[in-house]
Amino acid sequence: MIPFNKPHLTGKEVHYIYDAVQSGKISGNGKYTQLCHKKIQEDFRILKCLLTTSCTDALEMAAILIDIESGDEVIMPSYTFVSTANAFILRGAKIVFVDSRKDHPGMDESAIEELITSKTKAIVPVHYAGVACNMEIIMDVAKRHGLYVVEDAAQAIDSYFTFSNGERKPLGTIGHLAAFSFHETKNIIAGEGGMLAVNTEEFVQRAEIIWEKGTNRSSFFRGEVDKYGWVDMGSSFLPSDIIAAFLWAQLENLNSIQEKRLSIWNLYFNSLKDWAKENGIQIHSYPEFATNNAHMFYLVFSNIDDRDLMIKHLKSNDILSVFHYLSLHKSPFYHEKHDGRILLESDRYTDGLLRLPIYHDLDLDSVNKIISCIIQLNF
Amino acid sequence: MIPFNKPHLTGKEVHYIYDAVQSGKISGNGKYTQLCHKKIQEDFRILKCLLTTSCTDALEMAAILIDIESGDEVIMPSYTFVSTANAFILRGAKIVFVDSRKDHPGMDESAIEELITSKTKAIVPVHYAGVACNMEIIMDVAKRHGLYVVEDAAQAIDSYFTFSNGERKPLGTIGHLAAFSFHETKNIIAGEGGMLAVNTEEFVQRAEIIWEKGTNRSSFFRGEVDKYGWVDMGSSFLPSDIIAAFLWAQLENLNSIQEKRLSIWNLYFNSLKDWAKENGIQIHSYPEFATNNAHMFYLVFSNIDDRDLMIKHLKSNDILSVFHYLSLHKSPFYHEKHDGRILLESDRYTDGLLRLPIYHDLDLDSVNKIISCIIQLNF
Repeated sequence: MIPFNKPHLTGKEVHYIYDAVQSGKISGNGKYTQLCHKKIQEDFRILKCLLTTSCTDALEMAAILIDIESGDEVIMPSYTFVSTANAFILRGAKIVFVDSRKDHPGMDESAIEELITSKTKAIVPVHYAGVACNMEIIMDVAKRHGLYVVEDAAQAIDSYFTFSNGERKPLGTIGHLAAFSFHETKNIIAGEGGMLAVNTEEFVQRAEIIWEKGTNRSSFFRGEVDKYGWVDMGSSFLPSDIIAAFLWAQLENLNSIQEKRLSIWNLYFNSLKDWAKENGIQIHSYPEFATNNAHMFYLVFSNIDDRDLMIKHLKSNDILSVFHYLSLHKSPFYHEKHDGRILLESDRYTDGLLRLPIYHDLDLDSVNKIISCIIQLNF
Repeated sequence: MIPFNKPHLTGKEVHYIYDAVQSGKISGNGKYTQLCHKKIQEDFRILKCLLTTSCTDALEMAAILIDIESGDEVIMPSYTFVSTANAFILRGAKIVFVDSRKDHPGMDESAIEELITSKTKAIVPVHYAGVACNMEIIMDVAKRHGLYVVEDAAQAIDSYFTFSNGERKPLGTIGHLAAFSFHETKNIIAGEGGMLAVNTEEFVQRAEIIWEKGTNRSSFFRGEVDKYGWVDMGSSFLPSDIIAAFLWAQLENLNSIQEKRLSIWNLYFNSLKDWAKENGIQIHSYPEFATNNAHMFYLVFSNIDDRDLMIKHLKSNDILSVFHYLSLHKSPFYHEKHDGRILLESDRYTDGLLRLPIYHDLDLDSVNKIISCIIQLNF
């Protein structure tokens, strides 16, 4: 059986965990947390980052930081994980869903501006499959309307956006705030885990306070205040240093992990592109302004029956493939709150998108087996 | 140097973590999470428990479950950790602080009823130091006024309350909901970690949904629904199974951990009670209805100067002792929102309470050294 995902171990995870456990400091913000912060800040030129227990929690921190209040509107794609929306709903926001692009599931940047009202507070682009949304247009719209941009970079570690002037920036460093995931299904993992990236000075100090349960404890330990207390709302967003120790082993090997994933991605793409074209199937692609971090490889079938047929066909050959998000605007929780607009592309990805196995430990023979299986079917 | 706290390792933590990591299932709700759930539910007769990334998060789940909304009032002690309040403030609640008892820092159950208004939704007793609040009176008040009771049992694992009819129940199983902590400073630990206890059928199903980011994923995997989707608000409250694996090693050794802590507690108490009486110092005690889980050993000095003198004296003898909470009603964040009532006992514990080192790996010779040091001072 070829599983859909298998978490990759670099071999040093338990070694670093053992070190953390033996040190006797296994609560949050220990040695490994600080090592991870420093390396990520340097590697991706992030002003300030803070590990969290999940990407969901990082999004919740962002929602608190931009002071989302009851009635505020937040624009985001409907084709995304529930956490993108939940984080803002927990603060009382109304979610205004935007459709996806025709060429990839990221939000359609040309459809945002018409949705902005006096209540709009933020835009949340989701870099689906690690493929950049058009951040140049999104940042421009946000700037003209005085809105915050929170990047949902859950899948987007080590992926980039190129501006029209040629400047290239890592995803998660362009919006005011960004959230990353280290869930076991991601390129680099910590079991459950995430990270908030703070990209403007405006939020640096308060982010640390909210992270530390609303206290100025971090300032206290740096000697900036003479006692610490409760100064803001907040939560316990810090992961155990055990989680950070695991992540540290992964971060050290990011480059080799990315190389391996990319080799699988390229094999899929080169072997399936002709078959896809002949069968009217949309193949995973990315716009010129985006890079490919090989987080995912997907196909989009023209209807749910074809997609489900392929899932069954692969399963009968001991290969597990999965569909993905269901449009949030049609969910049991939100369909009555949605304003009724039809989001065709979002629904098309809901019905048609199929994700193929892609992970570090997947050997190329298995990838070739999967490809052979896929091209047995024609539509 | 005798530290204030040292996390205890049973020796099996890294072994179980290694097993979890090798299994390839390190996200939430894996094998060790389920082992922990089962054992805790059986040992403490809890209807349903769910591990969380922190006690803070368990309290946040409780606040969501009881539908706290903007303007709702929640009654809790001022002498508590910021998370007790933050969890409800994040949902829009107004906190109504109640004073502590004279004989221990738990909430004064006789002062609750006069604070209830038409907006009151819940009472949150905090079992400070693992010492039970008077749950019989609190549950009676709550029942008569139609209020929820959420026990903050962060420090209260393996501690009990005895009702006037002789029935004894574990703390965290009496209120509608309860939150436990496994932070590295607690009796049993997981670095960072917590648990929600659900004690009424009313909340069982929704608790699981909120835990799973507002989806009915758990029902789906049990075959109760044929697909899963977004049905409610929620967050990512699940800890990695790495954290659960650590906790599992601790749970297996709960009894021996408790015995050792109790032996230290008894040595402190028996050696210091006369000195405390002679010097007008309140010594850690517990009411007849409560048991002692030896989470903490504290002294309450009559003023802040005496307390700080003792901290310095111990420090000069290489012993670290610490004061504890600062009254939340006087905090920078909440003093202007507080209704102005004076909470004498809460302030007295703020100024006077001193916590002595108590942890599994503290040998009795060291305890005797601490005791000898303490009784060198007279007030």
